[in-house]
Amino acid sequence: MAIEVYWGSGSPFAWRVLLALEFKRLPYVAHLLQFSKQEHKSPQMLALNPRGRVPVLKDGEYVCFESLAILYYLERKYPQRPIFGGSAEEAGTIMRVICEYQAYIEPQLTRIVTAVFSGDLGGDEITAAMHAVASEARTLEARLSHSDWIVGESYSAVDMVIFPGIQLLKRALEKPQAAELSSRFMPVEVNYPALGRWLARVAAQPGYERTFPPHWRSG
Amino acid sequence: MAIEVYWGSGSPFAWRVLLALEFKRLPYVAHLLQFSKQEHKSPQMLALNPRGRVPVLKDGEYVCFESLAILYYLERKYPQRPIFGGSAEEAGTIMRVICEYQAYIEPQLTRIVTAVFSGDLGGDEITAAMHAVASEARTLEARLSHSDWIVGESYSAVDMVIFPGIQLLKRALEKPQAAELSSRFMPVEVNYPALGRWLARVAAQPGYERTFPPHWRSG
Repeated sequence: MAIEVYWGSGSPFAWRVLLALEFKRLPYVAHLLQFSKQEHKSPQMLALNPRGRVPVLKDGEYVCFESLAILYYLERKYPQRPIFGGSAEEAGTIMRVICEYQAYIEPQLTRIVTAVFSGDLGGDEITAAMHAVASEARTLEARLSHSDWIVGESYSAVDMVIFPGIQLLKRALEKPQAAELSSRFMPVEVNYPALGRWLARVAAQPGYERTFPPHWRSG
Repeated sequence: MAIEVYWGSGSPFAWRVLLALEFKRLPYVAHLLQFSKQEHKSPQMLALNPRGRVPVLKDGEYVCFESLAILYYLERKYPQRPIFGGSAEEAGTIMRVICEYQAYIEPQLTRIVTAVFSGDLGGDEITAAMHAVASEARTLEARLSHSDWIVGESYSAVDMVIFPGIQLLKRALEKPQAAELSSRFMPVEVNYPALGRWLARVAAQPGYERTFPPHWRSG
């Protein structure tokens, strides 16, 4: 029985799981839910994840949610083409940088994206969040100046966790209303050249097109 | 060479790592840093973790920080006495409940603890946070009514991640200024009997006394 994954277009959390499934070359059936129709809150979905959030993975009778947990499950179940490193030390560092992203970057990034899409860009805390993200991006830039991937010599779970967030941030900062806020960050490829090359590297992975948010294609 | 761990009294993040080291029966040298003297921000500590936070683990030449990453490193390096489950499915669920705790409980719990210790308990958002934590505690209570441990049949990383947070919350809610806020939650042992028994079960683990925050003993 194939793996089933429930996702939504543009969810950075769901995107991580699709990147992992593609990298591990696992066959899967992707169910694209329409957030606008609240399909992620349907009785069937709430039976799988009472929090009504995506991604949800179903592998036979086993159900898992929370993107990092799904990545870890896939690694334990299907260890071929590892995404959590080849040694305990690399594994620890991959998880460390994932935890740092979740603790220090993601909340600020979410604040910026929410502000841009809601049009409420006035507050000082948005400027502060942009400074914090720019500072963390410099740390990533330094890592990627020495290596093709964020940790170690291979594409790993940390790349899969961070990539969709940066793509979402880019998409938000490309909006006209974000022009002033984004001036020091964008274009990424100019201000953070190694990060820009890394974005292109992930996007060149086999199967990437299948993971790309469908509604982003139309603008 | 023994494992070295840098911790601070009362840090729930550091406590997790000590619980894991004790459970795995790994010999370690614990360096207790004094937060009041800013020892976690010393040049030596910043050289290990530029963010100046504990816990930090040093195993020979390898340095790791972020508590979940340390737990994962220890599991990969020292797989005896596993803390991330005996199967891929159990591993996925352990990580899922850790992620849920970090996403839905920890931020609210931190808000409450900070408010109690700063004495600023007036806001509606503190009451809302208390409601949210109480609701999540009921979910944990339901899990622990069927099993001795949060996931599966063994003490695992998810118990180690959540236990110090609940202890910190209890300590805050025992303060006189928190009496009104805590009335529906405390005493834990009465309102959440299975959770109360689980707290006692973790505290009965060998080596627990070595992990207990020293400054909590004096009141």
